[in-house]
Amino acid sequence: MDSFQKGLETLREIDPLSGDRIMKMLEDIAPDMARWIIEFPFGEVYSRPGLDLKTRELLTIASLTTQGAASPQLENHIHNALKVGCSRGEIVEAILQMAVYAGFPKALNALFTARAAFSDKAPGL
Amino acid sequence: MDSFQKGLETLREIDPLSGDRIMKMLEDIAPDMARWIIEFPFGEVYSRPGLDLKTRELLTIASLTTQGAASPQLENHIHNALKVGCSRGEIVEAILQMAVYAGFPKALNALFTARAAFSDKAPGL
Amino acid sequence: MDSFQKGLETLREIDPLSGDRIMKMLEDIAPDMARWIIEFPFGEVYSRPGLDLKTRELLTIASLTTQGAASPQLENHIHNALKVGCSRGEIVEAILQMAVYAGFPKALNALFTARAAFSDKAPGL
Amino acid sequence: MDSFQKGLETLREIDPLSGDRIMKMLEDIAPDMARWIIEFPFGEVYSRPGLDLKTRELLTIASLTTQGAASPQLENHIHNALKVGCSRGEIVEAILQMAVYAGFPKALNALFTARAAFSDKAPGL
Amino acid sequence: MDSFQKGLETLREIDPLSGDRIMKMLEDIAPDMARWIIEFPFGEVYSRPGLDLKTRELLTIASLTTQGAASPQLENHIHNALKVGCSRGEIVEAILQMAVYAGFPKALNALFTARAAFSDKAPGL
Amino acid sequence: MDSFQKGLETLREIDPLSGDRIMKMLEDIAPDMARWIIEFPFGEVYSRPGLDLKTRELLTIASLTTQGAASPQLENHIHNALKVGCSRGEIVEAILQMAVYAGFPKALNALFTARAAFSDKAPGL
Repeated sequence: MDSFQKGLETLREIDPLSGDRIMKMLEDIAPDMARWIIEFPFGEVYSRPGLDLKTRELLTIASLTTQGAASPQLENHIHNALKVGCSRGEIVEAILQMAVYAGFPKALNALFTARAAFSDKAPGL
Repeated sequence: MDSFQKGLETLREIDPLSGDRIMKMLEDIAPDMARWIIEFPFGEVYSRPGLDLKTRELLTIASLTTQGAASPQLENHIHNALKVGCSRGEIVEAILQMAVYAGFPKALNALFTARAAFSDKAPGL
Repeated sequence: MDSFQKGLETLREIDPLSGDRIMKMLEDIAPDMARWIIEFPFGEVYSRPGLDLKTRELLTIASLTTQGAASPQLENHIHNALKVGCSRGEIVEAILQMAVYAGFPKALNALFTARAAFSDKAPGL
Repeated sequence: MDSFQKGLETLREIDPLSGDRIMKMLEDIAPDMARWIIEFPFGEVYSRPGLDLKTRELLTIASLTTQGAASPQLENHIHNALKVGCSRGEIVEAILQMAVYAGFPKALNALFTARAAFSDKAPGL
Repeated sequence: MDSFQKGLETLREIDPLSGDRIMKMLEDIAPDMARWIIEFPFGEVYSRPGLDLKTRELLTIASLTTQGAASPQLENHIHNALKVGCSRGEIVEAILQMAVYAGFPKALNALFTARAAFSDKAPGL
Repeated sequence: MDSFQKGLETLREIDPLSGDRIMKMLEDIAPDMARWIIEFPFGEVYSRPGLDLKTRELLTIASLTTQGAASPQLENHIHNALKVGCSRGEIVEAILQMAVYAGFPKALNALFTARAAFSDKAPGL
């Protein structure tokens, strides 16, 4: 099985419709970017056996909180984290911990993004 | 029990000598910083029940890899992750995943820090 | 006096209502974060004698301008800076200086945040 | 010829009206910042012979994509890149390459900024 | 031809020995990372027709200068830039321009890295 | 008086020899960068009347601590801060405050840079 197939399969585990959404989101401007997202993060990284999807989504939330300038992606991954079984409490814990490492402003902004993600019905990535 | 006591207790779970090391490391320049580290990250954050210490250390590794300019702290937390039960493989997985979110150069530098941490005998934080 | 009481007192010096606002802002999602903000930045850091509140608020403005992705916090601290006695000119000077250290785009964005803060009636943090 | 004159001349090569726009954009809050932008980036940097304007605009797009928190400036420089002769394809390529170095979230956000820049009629800087 | 083969071919254009060096550099700690570097940056990104290798290496130098914490990768890419035909002057120009966008300290540090790269005999990536 | 002369004068206030050091430091690789440093940060920014040199050096220390990857520049500016009259205690306070805004790892690294700066005899910028 190649990376693209493996990526679609991993995405299906998170949300059956996400593969299509990624391709539609980028088809007018950079369709290869959609292919890369499916092949590399989902086909090569999330699909690896060493860590489960719950832990991987929390690690992504930690990284995006630390970066600070990626709130649409953070919101998507909070939705993904919920879908693979993280509780709201675990997501909030991961963000709170970032106050120590990335500073209070980034943790605060990520909490507000989490509040938005918890209350809307957006489908995530 | 106050935050300082809780922090020392959490630190003892990771490594019985780490509380003393933190205080010694900062006593000449900023002893209050040592107290803060014990009270806030370890007394208020790592000691919370919502996530276990293994997951918390992996989240810290994700954040420090993403920041890129904190390799002494990254090395310390790789030592801590090993002490609380993470395998080398899990630590490497957490770093590899950051290639997607923080870029290849930061993931590469963190891998080299992990190699150094795996091979030395330094006690961590 | 403990850190929480000291934090509320420091916040009262800046704006008598800010302690309540912080607690309300976070009570639904992470009330411990509100307690931490009161205890740590305001109870442990801003309350220290080594630098006055005016200088401390300018340092925070420098840090948030440099980070670039924290404009709600930057706007809050520009309000706080005005309340503790900084002039608009001093705030603009602190931001302009960041063009050298953080680059022109971040300084420009912070200037636009300052313009918004100067013209609105929002109460700050 | 001094830096201010050289800067206005370089700006005229990109767009005859941009010098005035920069001065108007900042005249109420920090007119010296407008002078600095004209004198330093455009009078001292873009006007240098070592690289052509097309390459320079792509380099700026790479830097702003990497920073992640400067989308208004990124949008301006995408407009500038188009004006000095970059194709949409070259701009997209420069952004896609940043997925490797700055991570997928920053490249994605920059692609969405590029889409907005390609479809609007805003005049750029 | 698959991404791995395309990546090796692109790397051969830069330096015939670099593919082996990448694999050796990571074989003890994360051999999949070596495969990813060959497949994704070199097999999928640098090999694309939209921009030439010279421009791509300058874009990478701009991104790494902006990040500030990736000097080993910056040194490697300065070597690569020289190998694909960039002059020292063009590399210095790309770095100098970053003073505007990423601030003077990062541009200065990148200049010192460039000086080291220009004077040593290290083979790059 | 032009920016270059004003810059040299400001530098002389900090340390009579620093102008020469800057020019020597860059004469082989980018002499225009030396001229820019004298003209722009020192001729246009530090020389402005709105904030005194002590406050300006503390703001620079806050920005460099927040960036995290600029420790040579941080060490230089700690030397400069001492020369224009900041006490060691004020410098340490400015760094400690950054634990809140930029996270504990960056504040810790800056404290270790400060310790080095306090104990060596290096002349600063």
